[in-house]
Amino acid sequence: MNASLAPTLPPAARAGQALRDVDTPSLALDLAAFERNLRVMQDWAERHGVALRPHAKAHKCPEVALRQLALGARGICCQKVSEALPFVAAGVRDIHISNEVVGPAKLALLGELARRADISVCVDHPDNLDALAQAMERAQARVTVLVEVDVGQGRCGVTDPQTVLALARRADAAAGLRFGGLQAYHGSVQHMRTQAERAAVCAEVARAAAAHADALRAAGLACPTITGSGTGSAQFDAASGVFTELQAGSYPFMDADYGDNEWAETLRFEQSLYLLSTVMSTPAAGRVVLDAGLKSSTAECGPPRVAGRAGLTYLAANDEHGVARVEPGAPAPALGEMVRLVPSHVDPTFNLHDSLVVFRDDVVVDLWPIAARGLSR
Amino acid sequence: MNASLAPTLPPAARAGQALRDVDTPSLALDLAAFERNLRVMQDWAERHGVALRPHAKAHKCPEVALRQLALGARGICCQKVSEALPFVAAGVRDIHISNEVVGPAKLALLGELARRADISVCVDHPDNLDALAQAMERAQARVTVLVEVDVGQGRCGVTDPQTVLALARRADAAAGLRFGGLQAYHGSVQHMRTQAERAAVCAEVARAAAAHADALRAAGLACPTITGSGTGSAQFDAASGVFTELQAGSYPFMDADYGDNEWAETLRFEQSLYLLSTVMSTPAAGRVVLDAGLKSSTAECGPPRVAGRAGLTYLAANDEHGVARVEPGAPAPALGEMVRLVPSHVDPTFNLHDSLVVFRDDVVVDLWPIAARGLSR
Repeated sequence: MNASLAPTLPPAARAGQALRDVDTPSLALDLAAFERNLRVMQDWAERHGVALRPHAKAHKCPEVALRQLALGARGICCQKVSEALPFVAAGVRDIHISNEVVGPAKLALLGELARRADISVCVDHPDNLDALAQAMERAQARVTVLVEVDVGQGRCGVTDPQTVLALARRADAAAGLRFGGLQAYHGSVQHMRTQAERAAVCAEVARAAAAHADALRAAGLACPTITGSGTGSAQFDAASGVFTELQAGSYPFMDADYGDNEWAETLRFEQSLYLLSTVMSTPAAGRVVLDAGLKSSTAECGPPRVAGRAGLTYLAANDEHGVARVEPGAPAPALGEMVRLVPSHVDPTFNLHDSLVVFRDDVVVDLWPIAARGLSR
Repeated sequence: MNASLAPTLPPAARAGQALRDVDTPSLALDLAAFERNLRVMQDWAERHGVALRPHAKAHKCPEVALRQLALGARGICCQKVSEALPFVAAGVRDIHISNEVVGPAKLALLGELARRADISVCVDHPDNLDALAQAMERAQARVTVLVEVDVGQGRCGVTDPQTVLALARRADAAAGLRFGGLQAYHGSVQHMRTQAERAAVCAEVARAAAAHADALRAAGLACPTITGSGTGSAQFDAASGVFTELQAGSYPFMDADYGDNEWAETLRFEQSLYLLSTVMSTPAAGRVVLDAGLKSSTAECGPPRVAGRAGLTYLAANDEHGVARVEPGAPAPALGEMVRLVPSHVDPTFNLHDSLVVFRDDVVVDLWPIAARGLSR
């Protein structure tokens, strides 16, 4: 026995390696499908005359954001101040923090960021607006403020037009702030399964957002930005004539939950994201155990699904195991064989991994750091 | 605007700071309750003449493991080979990988570890046993092999005594392997709610494990180790006369799921782990929004619970938000106020955080790195 330090962990993959030889569990991206997805959404936004500002909370990966920007995205969204740091470090200069930023540590960090990039942020409370203004004064910086309106989700945001107007005026008058418009995001519409359901709710969302913007304009305030939308509602929001920006995040990757939506012929995306797992036990007829569980793919939207292999069903995610059933008559995967899974929920799954194995034609081409993984403050 | 690099993220807390001033979301440990929990389980094991080998998959934190070992734990368990690395680096020299290790990259890493520490590992397939023996030969190292038996969980493990015996003999005969005994772990018993249910299933588990050990001994093979158990079953497994080691992991911390179990007067643990969150929006009467969601606390066992505050209920975990209801008549927490949460499931929640804020009497005393966070290979 040798008491020296522990060995170092080799990377899960290296460029040029066959995908089947990647160590597991690993999150992996089919680059060709990913690139097609980027193009489809960018084209959709451009065709409808709205800007695309993809949400980086989905992937937390600067390499992804830089490709979205290169194709024409206006900027990106982050959901937390700390999450924005690796993107600024990677050179992203236009970031919307699509959330309220509350507390002195976060506001101080926001001031630091605002000295280095164009930052906008949401507000739904006058006390937070005042604290934000003070933080910008201390930092000698300036941020754009969007008033968040609640257009039906029942989470954050203002519903009363008088309150919206009061916040907008207060932002307009504060030295370190610039009033920029509205955020009108509706999260729960994204996974309504049918086109008809999503179309109906999106129409309500657009009406509510337009009414708030009209009230501001009637009071003499410009409202240049109305931002919101997601992968499930972009089809309708882009065509609404109300939104100026789409915040979709999952469309480059997709997941099992989005895969269960009904999609239009005109706007649909391919699964490009996989969780690579290995059969680590074949203990009984009809049962195999995979080496990827809750610490590699979250389960609040159900367990991951098996990709590209009929007759194998991922039943239950334990912390580090996935128990799968081999249907009668189906070929059982062998001990050590790789099984590709489709994560059920993109965003929290990316947040479990430090790097993304990027492949083309089943050969690894790169490893991209998921640099904002864990940055939730 | 300044195009220099992004600011660095300050630590969430520093020693001497009041707990209420810690940046959120942060995982925090009540050191006094944690120390009492460590003592209670160590005493329980010693009183019953069994070894305690706490599971490090729960916390992934070497500072925790070193305190468990200092109190008398025999060694630790890890669930993945890569997870063991930071513990070996911290000086832990006796680690049981309580899982099958399958695939060339993992077996090579296991060989590296086995040159530096006493390592044991589970096996439930002859091909894996042979690959393990070859890997040890290549590494010029030696590991102890425990045959995993399925005592009712229906995950990994062998059920047939002849197969157990064949694997044990094969391990005994291989140059780089040492047959050490059995792993008999039953996961699903841990959260059966009543004492009576757990007692009944644990009796079955002990009978099954004893039968396997008896068969080995009848065939002339020593079976010095029978390892298994968890926080929910340790009460019964310690007293069974069958187990030689307890693998419990959650007892230093507890969570909402374990809190719902019925506990004996003689063996119970305190909640010591909290997720610190902040009220980031107070958008409507009866509703507040917290800044901690699915990226700070997993939800496969339900959402986290509010600690120490009556009339506030955490309803729904979104990716970065927690929507909470203020019951009629209850005081609403103010914008910016800290709310302590009890995570619903210890293990995957630790896996979301890079450091643990350690406090005593509501003052921060240390930040412990969760060094094995994300090490799932």
